[in-house]
Amino acid sequence: MKKTFLTIILCLAGIVATSAQEALWSGSQVQSPVINPDHSVTFNIFAPKASRVTVSGDFLSSQPAELKEGKNGVWTFTTAPLAPELYNYSFQVNGMKMLDPANVYISRDVASLTSIFIISHEKGDCGDLYRVNEVPHGNVSKVWYDSPTLKMKRRLTVYTPAGYERGRNYPVMYLLHGAGGDEEAWTTLGRTAQIMDNLIATGKAKPMIVVMPNGNVDCQAAPGEWSRGMYQPSFMGSLNHATKPAATMDESFMDIVRYIEANYKAAKGKKNRAVCGLSMGGGHTFAITKRYPNDFDYVGLFSAGLHISGGGDRNASFYDLLQKNTEVQKQLATLFNARPRLYWIAIGKTDFLYKQNADLRRYLDEKNYRYEYRETEGGHIWRNWRIYLTEFAQRLFK
Amino acid sequence: MKKTFLTIILCLAGIVATSAQEALWSGSQVQSPVINPDHSVTFNIFAPKASRVTVSGDFLSSQPAELKEGKNGVWTFTTAPLAPELYNYSFQVNGMKMLDPANVYISRDVASLTSIFIISHEKGDCGDLYRVNEVPHGNVSKVWYDSPTLKMKRRLTVYTPAGYERGRNYPVMYLLHGAGGDEEAWTTLGRTAQIMDNLIATGKAKPMIVVMPNGNVDCQAAPGEWSRGMYQPSFMGSLNHATKPAATMDESFMDIVRYIEANYKAAKGKKNRAVCGLSMGGGHTFAITKRYPNDFDYVGLFSAGLHISGGGDRNASFYDLLQKNTEVQKQLATLFNARPRLYWIAIGKTDFLYKQNADLRRYLDEKNYRYEYRETEGGHIWRNWRIYLTEFAQRLFK
Repeated sequence: MKKTFLTIILCLAGIVATSAQEALWSGSQVQSPVINPDHSVTFNIFAPKASRVTVSGDFLSSQPAELKEGKNGVWTFTTAPLAPELYNYSFQVNGMKMLDPANVYISRDVASLTSIFIISHEKGDCGDLYRVNEVPHGNVSKVWYDSPTLKMKRRLTVYTPAGYERGRNYPVMYLLHGAGGDEEAWTTLGRTAQIMDNLIATGKAKPMIVVMPNGNVDCQAAPGEWSRGMYQPSFMGSLNHATKPAATMDESFMDIVRYIEANYKAAKGKKNRAVCGLSMGGGHTFAITKRYPNDFDYVGLFSAGLHISGGGDRNASFYDLLQKNTEVQKQLATLFNARPRLYWIAIGKTDFLYKQNADLRRYLDEKNYRYEYRETEGGHIWRNWRIYLTEFAQRLFK
Repeated sequence: MKKTFLTIILCLAGIVATSAQEALWSGSQVQSPVINPDHSVTFNIFAPKASRVTVSGDFLSSQPAELKEGKNGVWTFTTAPLAPELYNYSFQVNGMKMLDPANVYISRDVASLTSIFIISHEKGDCGDLYRVNEVPHGNVSKVWYDSPTLKMKRRLTVYTPAGYERGRNYPVMYLLHGAGGDEEAWTTLGRTAQIMDNLIATGKAKPMIVVMPNGNVDCQAAPGEWSRGMYQPSFMGSLNHATKPAATMDESFMDIVRYIEANYKAAKGKKNRAVCGLSMGGGHTFAITKRYPNDFDYVGLFSAGLHISGGGDRNASFYDLLQKNTEVQKQLATLFNARPRLYWIAIGKTDFLYKQNADLRRYLDEKNYRYEYRETEGGHIWRNWRIYLTEFAQRLFK
């Protein structure tokens, strides 16, 4: 029986790879990337007709690195040993940007696809946290909910922790993406399911539901996942549409909370809800929590892009805007007087939003509002947002 | 407020596309593919240094088509008007295969990534069925279940139809992938969620749960989704591992049924269960239904790769093997005497498994076992499997 089956499989294989030559040509017999024992990485690409091949990636300080042509038309480059991280890269063959043909693992950031790999040195480092390990896994669902406020059905991503089938009363973290992102960003670029699986399995985070909505109020879903068709995503994707949205993200946010609490085993009330987000999603978090000051006990601003009404003064600092805006002052007073258990502000030292977040901290300090602050190296990048999620998740519901 | 926010967005945009030059270089300002009013498709790629650019795709009869260089380094090719379909393609720039840099919509078939697009001429054609339309959408979940028989936790994909939150007693279709595939194949290459959404919305199919397991009994999940890491998928992926699986797909299949019926609003019993699959999954369906002859009222073999014990005779036809194997004869007798409502065999005229399926039909005909037969053009390709799913789904639970 086994032999018959093997014969069939070989026939099927024959169909897929029409010839060994084609397989070679497409790079499918080249291994890349190869992660070496010293945590350096070797890239290989079959490009016999190329005159120049380079690799760009966030593991390089700035310029692309040159690959050297070896025998059989395979070009090669080996990095220095790399720190634990999820890395992105692409090749340039005679100046044409392309994915690594030997690596099916890619991720999309707005309209840009890159090849990815993960480096881990030891159990518990960030690379290990971003990997799928042999631990109990939560489920990830793409779910359509009704938003009466936005007058449409919308899509969101829900992570339910391992054991959810048998459990009850799970607290909920609402985790918001940035501009150009959608309900897929946190599970792909952010590795949310892996981070949560690994933190929960080691007892570092409480089992919780994680809800990742779409923050573009004029979209129903990620590109290609709603009736607008297979359009080219853009960073301005949510802003250049013809129709004016029926409401803002903060105005419509409780539609999401209501859906989750009606349809999942979610514990209710302020102490069982966290909301956080990166960049635009940090701005949404700021807006949501000042609009609903008694509904979230845990608040996370990750490299937040903050915006409040400024009376038309485009040169005013965020601190000046806060000083002038009595409505926002009142909202923040109500929010902080209700004593959220954690109001957490995180940003990288070179983030272009650093000053704005420093302005917010200055204001909170002057008012003696309690918050915590986390400053990291680097700028407005996913590497930081994965770290912020990892740290913030461990502080919740304890 | 809007202005402040816009300023932030523009700053963020500045970070992503470091320069307009880079954007141009990466092809992000080139539109491709462009679907023209006459259903022809124009491909554009910015490749100023290239000496030859071609496009391969399943809309071409055989050879790749040559793109012509226009002004500004953009190469172009326009197809003839195309029939409704989901199409795959890739470029070859100076012989290097690459995805369309202006198209983020791709799909993975085993280790091969290709760019995709959909052509539809009118409401209800197959292209329209494969699109996300403005209809109620079901949810798609990646779920970990326990397989005591295989001694591991395993991942599967579950589609629940629109309205599931308020409904109850849904019948279940178990939909199995082929060799080289995994629990992602049917939702990506097979467009299952779109097909089911569109068929259910127009009343052509009953609302049902669709369960898409992983048919590789030595894998827990799709590549990159379990602890084996980011390995390169291969057509032989499920067969070249060191450890012998604890059981076969058919031996372990009821673990899946039990999990679904315990954790979903699934109607139980034979008349509420369908099982079908393509290629290796058609073989699994054949094996599952003869092992459990009283458990599935709807059976679909899509281009099935059939295998039964043949006593070592490698040259025996499938008909000869059936003639010799009294155990399988008994199983089939039990199965057909229990009168499944639909035993559906579908295959393409040029499929390399055509003879084997004809052998099965010859045997069933001689025994007067009731089945239905659907023959299409073409061979062992997803284009056929999407058609078979579309037709089979409309026959269920009525």
